[in-house]
Amino acid sequence: MRAPIEFWFDFSSPYSYIASEWIDAVAARHGRTVNWRAMLLGASFQVSGLQPPINFPMKREYLVRDVLRSAAFAGVPARMPSPFPVATQFVARVFYWLQAEDPARAVAWAHAALRAYFTRNVDLSDAPQLKALCHEAGLDADAAEAAWSDPAWKLALKTANEQAIAAGVFGAPFFFVDGEPFWGNDRQAQLEAWLAAGPPRGLA
Amino acid sequence: MRAPIEFWFDFSSPYSYIASEWIDAVAARHGRTVNWRAMLLGASFQVSGLQPPINFPMKREYLVRDVLRSAAFAGVPARMPSPFPVATQFVARVFYWLQAEDPARAVAWAHAALRAYFTRNVDLSDAPQLKALCHEAGLDADAAEAAWSDPAWKLALKTANEQAIAAGVFGAPFFFVDGEPFWGNDRQAQLEAWLAAGPPRGLA
Repeated sequence: MRAPIEFWFDFSSPYSYIASEWIDAVAARHGRTVNWRAMLLGASFQVSGLQPPINFPMKREYLVRDVLRSAAFAGVPARMPSPFPVATQFVARVFYWLQAEDPARAVAWAHAALRAYFTRNVDLSDAPQLKALCHEAGLDADAAEAAWSDPAWKLALKTANEQAIAAGVFGAPFFFVDGEPFWGNDRQAQLEAWLAAGPPRGLA
Repeated sequence: MRAPIEFWFDFSSPYSYIASEWIDAVAARHGRTVNWRAMLLGASFQVSGLQPPINFPMKREYLVRDVLRSAAFAGVPARMPSPFPVATQFVARVFYWLQAEDPARAVAWAHAALRAYFTRNVDLSDAPQLKALCHEAGLDADAAEAAWSDPAWKLALKTANEQAIAAGVFGAPFFFVDGEPFWGNDRQAQLEAWLAAGPPRGLA
């Protein structure tokens, strides 16, 4: 069995959302599983010195266009949420709380939350909206709220962020295939080619 | 006859170099020509507040890997030059000097200079090396040097930079197809799909 693909994502990253809709199918086509890893991109930005692209007006205008176009080309329904971005520590801690019990439930939660934010404008940073989403997703909303306030799951997310930074994750989505790093939804074709045949001819 | 594709590039941008190797063929497949536009990315950065990715160590390490991998996947020979980046106003002014006489000669010059920098480490900011490259490319090297010092070609490049900024060009390569903006070598597939069939289904 070959190593899982590592898939780092932030719940407020639109390109992470698009990638979340294809990564499992791509992995399966090449006999791989996916290790889903939620992170806070802001924690990485603090270390790297980078900033969210939407902080730059020239880039922001393009980004909105590009997100919607990239989603449409990928066949993924999407709209730009408002507010954007939002704080994602609650939703990410719920992810790790679920993952400790059952990775498949964590992935189902990631899909539910990313789709809610990027198609229905559910504000993942707002406790009442997030609890309603938990309920809708079949979770115990009070237990989920307790989890996102629990030092144990705070630590789990903090540890994940530190692991992401140590691995060089400066943006999202970010993938590793047998240690090879791929940044961005737009590296899907390269990632697939690498899965199929390894490094391209001529790469040192 | 449909409108030319606008192709903005900086001579010190490795992703511009990779794109320069496929843009004409892609355009031709869809009955288009290409309007090559040299620019100084630094001029745009001053307005946008953005910085070159290589200013950020976490991103720089990935970028080097990604440039070589992206070039290999595209079948384009490449190595990372040193020094990198370099000032490109001389080589860009020569481009506009040639373009005023004959756009095809300007494109040939762009290919010669990008290939020299990204495969043979010819420092395009160094006057003696640039003159030697002019000579090799069949240009009058003294006339080229006079052109890159001439206020007329300084103004031509300055005007191009201002046009780029006004059009929202915050990175390179940057393309426009009938006004639709595409940023990055990695938008080749979307650009081709757009040329073939226009906007994807579902794009507002």
